Amino acid sequence: VEEFPPSGSNGVTLRCRSRVKSSCPIQSKDYALPNSSWSQGMMDLYSRFLEMCKDGTWKRIPSYSNSVDHIPGKAFWESLKLMSEKERKDTRLFPRNMDTEGVGFEYAMFLNPSEKRMVCLFQPGPYLEGPSGFAHGGSTATIIDSTIGSCATFVAGRVMTANLSINYRNPIPLGSVVLVDSKVDQVEGRKVFLSCHVRSIDGQTLHAEATALFIRLDSTKSLQQQMSCQ
Amino acid sequence: VEEFPPSGSNGVTLRCRSRVKSSCPIQSKDYALPNSSWSQGMMDLYSRFLEMCKDGTWKRIPSYSNSVDHIPGKAFWESLKLMSEKERKDTRLFPRNMDTEGVGFEYAMFLNPSEKRMVCLFQPGPYLEGPSGFAHGGSTATIIDSTIGSCATFVAGRVMTANLSINYRNPIPLGSVVLVDSKVDQVEGRKVFLSCHVRSIDGQTLHAEATALFIRLDSTKSLQQQMSCQ
Repeated sequence: VEEFPPSGSNGVTLRCRSRVKSSCPIQSKDYALPNSSWSQGMMDLYSRFLEMCKDGTWKRIPSYSNSVDHIPGKAFWESLKLMSEKERKDTRLFPRNMDTEGVGFEYAMFLNPSEKRMVCLFQPGPYLEGPSGFAHGGSTATIIDSTIGSCATFVAGRVMTANLSINYRNPIPLGSVVLVDSKVDQVEGRKVFLSCHVRSIDGQTLHAEATALFIRLDSTKSLQQQMSCQ
Repeated sequence: VEEFPPSGSNGVTLRCRSRVKSSCPIQSKDYALPNSSWSQGMMDLYSRFLEMCKDGTWKRIPSYSNSVDHIPGKAFWESLKLMSEKERKDTRLFPRNMDTEGVGFEYAMFLNPSEKRMVCLFQPGPYLEGPSGFAHGGSTATIIDSTIGSCATFVAGRVMTANLSINYRNPIPLGSVVLVDSKVDQVEGRKVFLSCHVRSIDGQTLHAEATALFIRLDSTKSLQQQMSCQ
C-alpha cells in the first residue's frame, strides 16, 4: 500500500493548479469532511470512525473533485505532466460533480489496512432519485464501485473495474445514511476479488450486497490496452 | 404495454406543476431531444433511429428530470395526489440532475416493442469521469440500469432492480458516443430477465455487457415491502 496522501497533512493533498511545472502547489478541497447538509446520523457515524482512527486502526481517506488528485505518490506528479491544464479543469470525478452540498453524493471513506477493508458513510441527496423517494440503482452502483475500487487501490495499487454484480435487497431512502462496507477477499496475480454490503446505520436493513473483480493496472500500458486483453 | 406518454403529442407529456388538483397542466421539458452539446456522431445516430420510427417499428421515448413524470397512464395522475408539490420539486432523476447541457448524461432512448428491446444513445460528459479521460464505472452502471429498467417497464410494467451484473470490457472515453442495447430475455411470474451490450457506434468496440433481474411491482404494496420479500 502506497502512502496516501503523498504530501501535506490532515488529509489535505497539495496540488498545483496554476501551472503544471510551477513550484507553488495549492490545496485541493477535501470533500470527505462534514458540511451543513450532513444529518445527525451521518455526523455521529463520522465521529465514531474518526475516534477509531486515533490508534491507527482506521485511516480517514480524503476525497477530491478530480480523479487526478487521487493518484498517490510519484505517479500523481508524473501524471500532471501528461495532462493539459485544460483537460484537468474541465472534468470532474463523477460522484463529486455537484456544486451544491447535500443534493448529490455525500460520503466519507475510512480504510482499515490490516483487514483490507474500506467503509464508506453515504448520505444520498435528492438529486440521486430513481423510484420516488429512493436512490437510483445507478447511484447505489456508483457508491459501491467507488468504495470497492478505493479498497482495491489501497490494497493492490491502481485498478480498473472488470466485473460488478449487485443484489439490490431494500431500496435506500433519499436523505438516509447507510454504511458501505467492502473488503478484499482474494488477490490472484492481477485479479483482485472484493465483496461489499450496504446496510442501514443500525445494521438492521441490508440494502444491497455486491461482489466485484478488479484488474490491477500495469503503469507502462494504456487503460485501453489493458482492459481489452483481460 | 401501456401507452406512453399518457397524453400530449410529439413525445411531450402534459403535467401540472402549479397545483396538484389544477385543471391547467403545463409541459415538462423533454431532455431526450438534441441540444448543442450533442456531437455529430450522436446527431447522426439519433436521426437514424428517428427515421426507423416512421413505420412504427421503433418509438422515441421522452425523458424528464423527475421520476414522477415517467409513470405512465392513470398511475401518473394518481401519484400526483400521493406526493406533495415540495417533494416533487426538490428531487431529480439521477441521470437528469445536471443543469448544464453536455457535462453529464446526454442520452435518448428508442423502444422496439415487438423485439422487447430498448436502445439508448449515450454521450458521457466530462463530469462523469472515473479514470482520467474515461467514464466512471458507476456512470456506465447508471445508464445500463436506466436503459434496462425502462425496457423492463415497457414490457412488464413498473419494476425494480433486483440484480445487475456488469462486465466492463473497454473503458468509455468521455465525449464519445455509445449504443446501449438491451432486451427482455425472459419473464417468469414477477421476474423479468434482461441482457445488455454497450458498443461504440461503429460496433467495433464492446465496452460493457450486462445481465439484470428486475422484479415487477405490485401497485398495492409499498416498494420496501416488495423488495424485502423477493
